Amino acid sequence: MDRDACVELDRQDPLAQWRDVFECPEGVVYLDGNSLGALPKATAQRLDHVVREEWGTGLIRSWNTAHWIDAPSRIGDKIARLIGAEPGEVVATDSTSVNLFKLLAAAAKLHAGRPTILTEAQNFPTDLYIAKGLVDLLGGAHAVRVVERADLERALDDRVAVLALTHVDYASGSFHDMPRLTDAAHRRGALALWDLSHSAGALPVDLNASQADLAVGCGYKYLNGGPGAPAYLFVARRWQEALRSPLTGWMGHADPFGFEARYRPAPGVRRQVAGTPPILAMAALEVGVDLWLQVDLPAARRKSQALGDLFIRLVDTIDGFDLEIASPRDAALRASHVAVRHPQAYRVMRALIDEGVIGDFRTPDLMRFGFAALYTRYVDIWDAVRRLDHVLRSQAWARPEYARKLAVT
Amino acid sequence: MDRDACVELDRQDPLAQWRDVFECPEGVVYLDGNSLGALPKATAQRLDHVVREEWGTGLIRSWNTAHWIDAPSRIGDKIARLIGAEPGEVVATDSTSVNLFKLLAAAAKLHAGRPTILTEAQNFPTDLYIAKGLVDLLGGAHAVRVVERADLERALDDRVAVLALTHVDYASGSFHDMPRLTDAAHRRGALALWDLSHSAGALPVDLNASQADLAVGCGYKYLNGGPGAPAYLFVARRWQEALRSPLTGWMGHADPFGFEARYRPAPGVRRQVAGTPPILAMAALEVGVDLWLQVDLPAARRKSQALGDLFIRLVDTIDGFDLEIASPRDAALRASHVAVRHPQAYRVMRALIDEGVIGDFRTPDLMRFGFAALYTRYVDIWDAVRRLDHVLRSQAWARPEYARKLAVT
Repeated sequence: MDRDACVELDRQDPLAQWRDVFECPEGVVYLDGNSLGALPKATAQRLDHVVREEWGTGLIRSWNTAHWIDAPSRIGDKIARLIGAEPGEVVATDSTSVNLFKLLAAAAKLHAGRPTILTEAQNFPTDLYIAKGLVDLLGGAHAVRVVERADLERALDDRVAVLALTHVDYASGSFHDMPRLTDAAHRRGALALWDLSHSAGALPVDLNASQADLAVGCGYKYLNGGPGAPAYLFVARRWQEALRSPLTGWMGHADPFGFEARYRPAPGVRRQVAGTPPILAMAALEVGVDLWLQVDLPAARRKSQALGDLFIRLVDTIDGFDLEIASPRDAALRASHVAVRHPQAYRVMRALIDEGVIGDFRTPDLMRFGFAALYTRYVDIWDAVRRLDHVLRSQAWARPEYARKLAVT
Repeated sequence: MDRDACVELDRQDPLAQWRDVFECPEGVVYLDGNSLGALPKATAQRLDHVVREEWGTGLIRSWNTAHWIDAPSRIGDKIARLIGAEPGEVVATDSTSVNLFKLLAAAAKLHAGRPTILTEAQNFPTDLYIAKGLVDLLGGAHAVRVVERADLERALDDRVAVLALTHVDYASGSFHDMPRLTDAAHRRGALALWDLSHSAGALPVDLNASQADLAVGCGYKYLNGGPGAPAYLFVARRWQEALRSPLTGWMGHADPFGFEARYRPAPGVRRQVAGTPPILAMAALEVGVDLWLQVDLPAARRKSQALGDLFIRLVDTIDGFDLEIASPRDAALRASHVAVRHPQAYRVMRALIDEGVIGDFRTPDLMRFGFAALYTRYVDIWDAVRRLDHVLRSQAWARPEYARKLAVT
């Protein structure tokens, strides 16, 4: 394997033309689309239109004429197609954290006799914090039970209201067997809630085939919706009437402009919307989602697996620098990023970013490299690993400035 | 009074030059800045920069280099200056509905022995719905007590945890005596929470001089932050450590990237942030807020009062069409919009909008006309009332198409 071979792989890549759809800054190998997806070229123009025409000229009229009011459902229906859901089962709204709170609260209320939210220690921190914040608010017997991954199925008992898991582990990139764990939850009478933040756009997800009850996910990673893009949530149709959001904002009312004294939830999943939708952010999200609707999803999965395999194979050739692959080596068991362990991971990543290879750091000792199938090339993998090798050999990471902690890593 | 006299008033208006700072479409008299503020000309360029440079080129690095991570606190500190708060007492985050939920829940928890949220029947619907959604979630003795405005002070008893009111009535534009009601709440040991959605940018607000405890407000009305702009919340410094958001998302953690197993709230008001901030929407909001920091606020108040007075005076000259001023005639008692009652208000407003005068309708029989001091001219008031007169005289409103209900009114 050499660089020319990677160039040849790019030449044969059936998805190669997608790179041109995104802004890919010169001199940068971007391997952090798992944290913030790259900018679709169409986004700036679309936002400019929404700002100047829809807001500037249309003003308040655009809630009707530009269909702003439908954005949560319209974009939700599009996201549904990427995660195995039906139209009317997904809305784009709020943040992942807020959506998780809404659905966990609704689940806790539905199964009021079951006090436990079951999750795993390795869950993404905000998912743990939100669950704990909810049970602290509810008080009484409500509790979050946090167990190791291997103990999840055993911990499912008839006190569990909802099993809440992130599908893809943000650290290792391994992922749960969604149908199996969902079925295990159902057999004990619990609901299964899946956080798809690292899943949609990274690997195939089929919520309905998995019989999933609830799901949330973010718009700013593989979906390319922009920094802090609106998130989404899914409620399987069979639960929509029974589940009620605790955040009963006017945009989830059956008739928001009826100004009724009593809250009357909108039919279907729309009742999970709370406040006024953030139209500018929604417009950017919709551009990213619209692109994904045109993607051959199995082909994208195959490519991201091949990129990850190549990355691991090349990292394995770096000898003597304490690198350890912290992700499944079997591509079938890995989502779309690879984590590499190193005792100086933070500083190595800082130095690598200054060398133009952008990944990220996860405490205490992981470097993450994400492989967004739409704009990552095989040659990028080659260049990234060569520069990683250089940073380690040159000890560029040892410069004192790289010890300084940044707010976001 | 005639049109020339209005032109002369505009010529003498010390705020006249502000109109040029906003997009004001040709042929439109925009009197709905109380619902969606006009577009600042600077916003499109700023957003384009954020999209192309900060997101497109800076990518994930911009969380640090473009200070995205500070946006909730930075913009909050700026909004603080418009509402009589100190730096570190306000964050820009989430929607008004979500912020209201967070603060009401925190207040209910703080005063756990006091089961009542007290509010008034005339409160904005989402404020009522959110309070009821919260008490439904909490169960037990928790309840929302909804009384008529005149009965509020009498209803303050030692069962009230928080008095939650919208400062300016969305319908009539009248406003509460914030210092007096806050004091009344405090004398009974309750907290006072103010929704400033129709206040900031419309009339002077001094939260700290009023001894207010908590506040929320939206960014998309007078603050010109864009459709569905992020909202803000205020927690008086004396309550910041005692109050805990139930929405304990990672961005409210003391060390979001420490990935600690336990939630450890950030110091100060920052703990009220939940998920990842929506950077594109925040950037647009910041443009609007930055403009307001340069405005002579008392002058803006005087102008909006004068515009309202002129509007009422001119509407009074329309005879025989069942118009009724549904707002205080005394400008000292009125915020920045005037409501006009008419039996066919919905259809009259639809026809008026087609005549190029944009206000809005509030069920069952109110037309609202907002006077945004920065871009509304005296001559706009003249033209608006003349066209209202025309719509009534010509019965243009009787066209059947205007009976059809729009999603947003």
